[in-house]
Amino acid sequence: MQKLRGIFTPNLVPLDARGQINEAELRRYIDWLIERGVHGLYPNGSTGEFTRFTADERKRIIRIACDQARGRVPVLAGAAEANVGETIAACELYHEYGARAVAIVSPFYYKLSPESVYAYFAEIAKHSPIDVTLYNIPMFASPIDVPTIERLAGEFERIIGIKDSSGDVAHMCRMIQAVKPNRPEFSFLTGWDVVLMPMLLMGCDGGTNATSGIVPELMRKLWDLVSANRLDEARPLQMRILELFDAMLYSADFPEGFRAAVELRGFDFGKSRQPLSAAQSIDRVALQRVLHCILADFGVVDPPAEGCSSRTGHVEQDKILQVTHAVMASLKAKGIG
Amino acid sequence: MQKLRGIFTPNLVPLDARGQINEAELRRYIDWLIERGVHGLYPNGSTGEFTRFTADERKRIIRIACDQARGRVPVLAGAAEANVGETIAACELYHEYGARAVAIVSPFYYKLSPESVYAYFAEIAKHSPIDVTLYNIPMFASPIDVPTIERLAGEFERIIGIKDSSGDVAHMCRMIQAVKPNRPEFSFLTGWDVVLMPMLLMGCDGGTNATSGIVPELMRKLWDLVSANRLDEARPLQMRILELFDAMLYSADFPEGFRAAVELRGFDFGKSRQPLSAAQSIDRVALQRVLHCILADFGVVDPPAEGCSSRTGHVEQDKILQVTHAVMASLKAKGIG
Amino acid sequence: MQKLRGIFTPNLVPLDARGQINEAELRRYIDWLIERGVHGLYPNGSTGEFTRFTADERKRIIRIACDQARGRVPVLAGAAEANVGETIAACELYHEYGARAVAIVSPFYYKLSPESVYAYFAEIAKHSPIDVTLYNIPMFASPIDVPTIERLAGEFERIIGIKDSSGDVAHMCRMIQAVKPNRPEFSFLTGWDVVLMPMLLMGCDGGTNATSGIVPELMRKLWDLVSANRLDEARPLQMRILELFDAMLYSADFPEGFRAAVELRGFDFGKSRQPLSAAQSIDRVALQRVLHCILADFGVVDPPAEGCSSRTGHVEQDKILQVTHAVMASLKAKGIG
Amino acid sequence: MQKLRGIFTPNLVPLDARGQINEAELRRYIDWLIERGVHGLYPNGSTGEFTRFTADERKRIIRIACDQARGRVPVLAGAAEANVGETIAACELYHEYGARAVAIVSPFYYKLSPESVYAYFAEIAKHSPIDVTLYNIPMFASPIDVPTIERLAGEFERIIGIKDSSGDVAHMCRMIQAVKPNRPEFSFLTGWDVVLMPMLLMGCDGGTNATSGIVPELMRKLWDLVSANRLDEARPLQMRILELFDAMLYSADFPEGFRAAVELRGFDFGKSRQPLSAAQSIDRVALQRVLHCILADFGVVDPPAEGCSSRTGHVEQDKILQVTHAVMASLKAKGIG
Repeated sequence: MQKLRGIFTPNLVPLDARGQINEAELRRYIDWLIERGVHGLYPNGSTGEFTRFTADERKRIIRIACDQARGRVPVLAGAAEANVGETIAACELYHEYGARAVAIVSPFYYKLSPESVYAYFAEIAKHSPIDVTLYNIPMFASPIDVPTIERLAGEFERIIGIKDSSGDVAHMCRMIQAVKPNRPEFSFLTGWDVVLMPMLLMGCDGGTNATSGIVPELMRKLWDLVSANRLDEARPLQMRILELFDAMLYSADFPEGFRAAVELRGFDFGKSRQPLSAAQSIDRVALQRVLHCILADFGVVDPPAEGCSSRTGHVEQDKILQVTHAVMASLKAKGIG
Repeated sequence: MQKLRGIFTPNLVPLDARGQINEAELRRYIDWLIERGVHGLYPNGSTGEFTRFTADERKRIIRIACDQARGRVPVLAGAAEANVGETIAACELYHEYGARAVAIVSPFYYKLSPESVYAYFAEIAKHSPIDVTLYNIPMFASPIDVPTIERLAGEFERIIGIKDSSGDVAHMCRMIQAVKPNRPEFSFLTGWDVVLMPMLLMGCDGGTNATSGIVPELMRKLWDLVSANRLDEARPLQMRILELFDAMLYSADFPEGFRAAVELRGFDFGKSRQPLSAAQSIDRVALQRVLHCILADFGVVDPPAEGCSSRTGHVEQDKILQVTHAVMASLKAKGIG
Repeated sequence: MQKLRGIFTPNLVPLDARGQINEAELRRYIDWLIERGVHGLYPNGSTGEFTRFTADERKRIIRIACDQARGRVPVLAGAAEANVGETIAACELYHEYGARAVAIVSPFYYKLSPESVYAYFAEIAKHSPIDVTLYNIPMFASPIDVPTIERLAGEFERIIGIKDSSGDVAHMCRMIQAVKPNRPEFSFLTGWDVVLMPMLLMGCDGGTNATSGIVPELMRKLWDLVSANRLDEARPLQMRILELFDAMLYSADFPEGFRAAVELRGFDFGKSRQPLSAAQSIDRVALQRVLHCILADFGVVDPPAEGCSSRTGHVEQDKILQVTHAVMASLKAKGIG
Repeated sequence: MQKLRGIFTPNLVPLDARGQINEAELRRYIDWLIERGVHGLYPNGSTGEFTRFTADERKRIIRIACDQARGRVPVLAGAAEANVGETIAACELYHEYGARAVAIVSPFYYKLSPESVYAYFAEIAKHSPIDVTLYNIPMFASPIDVPTIERLAGEFERIIGIKDSSGDVAHMCRMIQAVKPNRPEFSFLTGWDVVLMPMLLMGCDGGTNATSGIVPELMRKLWDLVSANRLDEARPLQMRILELFDAMLYSADFPEGFRAAVELRGFDFGKSRQPLSAAQSIDRVALQRVLHCILADFGVVDPPAEGCSSRTGHVEQDKILQVTHAVMASLKAKGIG
């Protein structure tokens, strides 16, 4: 089996007018991503809003992804379900579907101790017929600390990698130090797009980066430049990706900013299952205007007809303008502005 | 419709040897609780491990609870599902089952902004055929802040109360100040057992308290004493309940300590769906010994045959002893102790 | 020696036009507080901005407070200095000045472990000639956890109480449970004004409350009502104090809101040593308008000439209005509004 | 004036048997650092325990550092005092002493808003006769956010750099993006030793790294390797520095682990002003044993006579062993082990 390396796209899921999975658009989107050079797909991740789908829908998403990828790129299938038994059943199914591996987020809602996190993954690793990637995202789920990763990697060959979304480069280094000596083929993937370059330079094998669902050609280019040690070209690209990521992440609740952005690439993703208030709907239009200008600046789309005069060149100042806009819209909506 | 008041028990769910819902034991447990004086039931809450059951199982739990309660006490049914559509469908079903109201936890996993939390509950309130209680548990889910509570309570008659597990008495006062003037019948329930008495004294209407699933007669007694303004008798009882709660909460990952304790009352709850490591299994025995002695001290069960000599009278020192025990067991399990 | 009980005022320090301690005004302020019924003074606390004065100035403040109190009420003197040696020297000096006890905040800047916090207070307790009160304010300084309090109270008679500003009623109960059995005369004081009533009801002995520096007569009244078990009268007073406290705390960086408020009682406190930006100076005027109306509503001062129409009755909505005002002023100041 | 670049050592301060500054040893230590290649000195930083010295002592430390450096390397002088007036006076004095610039930590104890942080630094920048470096250490002091840094850098030529100890590479990139276009000569220094290499690769100009006070030759070597783009040699060195840093940081309260380590290089630093408990004194010996072996492994000192058999090669496992040791010692000290 080949090691997991490169840029994996955590797939957003398009919805139709009734709020159901838009399979045709999802298949078209997957083709578009593969054609633009991403190394793999990662459906049912946080970006893919796995918690907002039913168990049946989650299975359908993986089935579509594996079917549409047709072996062109590996599929890393998010497989976390309500409990260990359901999760193992999903592992078995995704193995049949042809996924390369599963990614399993640490237990969430309850904040578990390291010992419980260990017990959870150990039970899954013992029974899964498919390779398992740990998924650490401490802002949303119980953290998987370094001793627990070392223990799991040391005991279970079935566990082949970790996707870490902490964004902490030192933490990544600690994981590599703890695991790599005994498991040289173990994969380390970062889910924090804004530090992909420094992560790769310290020994990370790639990333599962939501931004690659919006600008796959640019994330792939960043990976290629860093791999070729062309750091002076890579650095400014990483900086602009940071700017784009921040605009998508901080201007709306995750992953709504990414949903708004992908539409600018020519896809119809429909309305999110998380309802938006009247004030928020206004925000989305403003966000799209900002994103359109950033994408145009990257040369990925044409600039908007009305031009990009509102862009100041200072991402922080742009944020203030957007926030101001949102506050005023919100006050107006309440009739007090 | 009567206002929600008093002690609601967030039901633990017994499992059989195969890890499935043990319906007979659940029904026997519900009867036992009602006979010991709790004012209501609250299945599918955090204590009830709602995230560890499938959607079908969650529905079955509510059906059993409503059926077994037979109108003797109201059922507050946890109804949060994967998305707004599924949640509204659950509201409709639980209305048919005869639940008094639903309790809906704020969206979790993703950390949502107040505006998104508002939009989520607004959408549910518009379509639910049954009264809705907000459920704020900031340690696990997106916080529901005071302005959002005020806004939701002001706009939707369907929203009739809030269950708050922050344990912050000042926060409870702020909610009461913000909501009660316009909605005098709104219910304020605390989910933090260790401050039930001060919460009630500041205007709270009751609690959804996991401890009432272990010592229902004592939680009911505390409520009665505070209601009768017999504060000098209530205070020491509240203090001992704090001691019991701490022992259950801090000695294992929630709600495992409560599962261990309820078995001492004569129920068979089986193994949790969250696996335990070898070291943790040892912990559980130690915890049961401590809990047995605390319960005996309350006069609820007989003391253990071997006596209670290990209890120091200092809950903090007991915790250190337990932690030491766990560390040593853990080291031994790793072969380095 | 008498136990520390009742309402202690953490003294704000008035400054003159040159930014130096305004001794005459400080003396006048101390008399005013004592005449309005506070049980004690607490200079050099967080409210008194002890970190913004030099070591010499801190000594002068205690000297003035002891001298002006003239034994009418006890002085609890903040004595934390740069290190243990300097702190013990301050203890000796304040003993000479006639302070009843010192209050020593847990080490700050560095976040120390419980063992280091223990070692710090143990060293001071061994050498102080004056009774020592621990001061726990986890939002600003290293937390003093319950086992450490139990250990210190158990080993040192010299330590006679704790002032806790966490605002966590359960934490207060845990401290009382851990310490009181062995040290029945130990004092428990809360520094979180908004929960004074529930704290007292659970066994707390009083408070060191910044709000008592603004409305001493009302804080004293709250203490009297709770002591007399007149809870139905005490509760609404506590709720209004919460509203006043929130307005002072959340509308500016602490303790600037309290400095603005005390001027409405007829004192000249001058400009803070922490500089204010142009935008913040505008805020201060808006805050004073809100505070004036709240104080007028308490019947403590006359309403402002222009009336109080801007007050909505909803403290949260008022906060939004103030924040909006501040944002707009801030944008205008930057030339982009 | 030359730009601040390279490795600045935040000087630890040796104390004599009476707990006073050991000037001779401090001078000897400064020579030793300069001879081993550090690019500058940074006295009165967090590592230098500036809060544990009196105002007079802080001035003496800077005087000694400037005098002993004799222009061989620039001195970045920590100048934060109790308030803006005192801080500006220190700036004037350190300018006379010949410091290259001052570093001023963001206000601490109180948690200030961005607007207040701005006002604080603006006031200092307006009056300082010497270049000012901002010092952001959010774990200990009010954070300086990116818009505030951009605003201060844009308004004040006097502010020439920032030292950031957050360790967040993305945050560093955001600062560089926001400031560098308008202030190309601005210095960006990281205070988080474990990510020095990735920080430098993303555009950072150097570091103020406590580890350089223990192994100056190795930190200098890391800087040289990264500057020469010899990444494959730099990476393993950075990884070992991480291991050493973690051992010093997590085994005792900061900066005690660094004080213990520097003694292994042949200096007498005396006892810290923060007292140690009996249990902690034992810890210190264990820590020294571990550090000695790590330093020997770097080839900087000889291995200890008893060998290094206790080192497992797994830093995490070593930590567990140390913690176990400490717990047992602590229990023994209490007579319950």
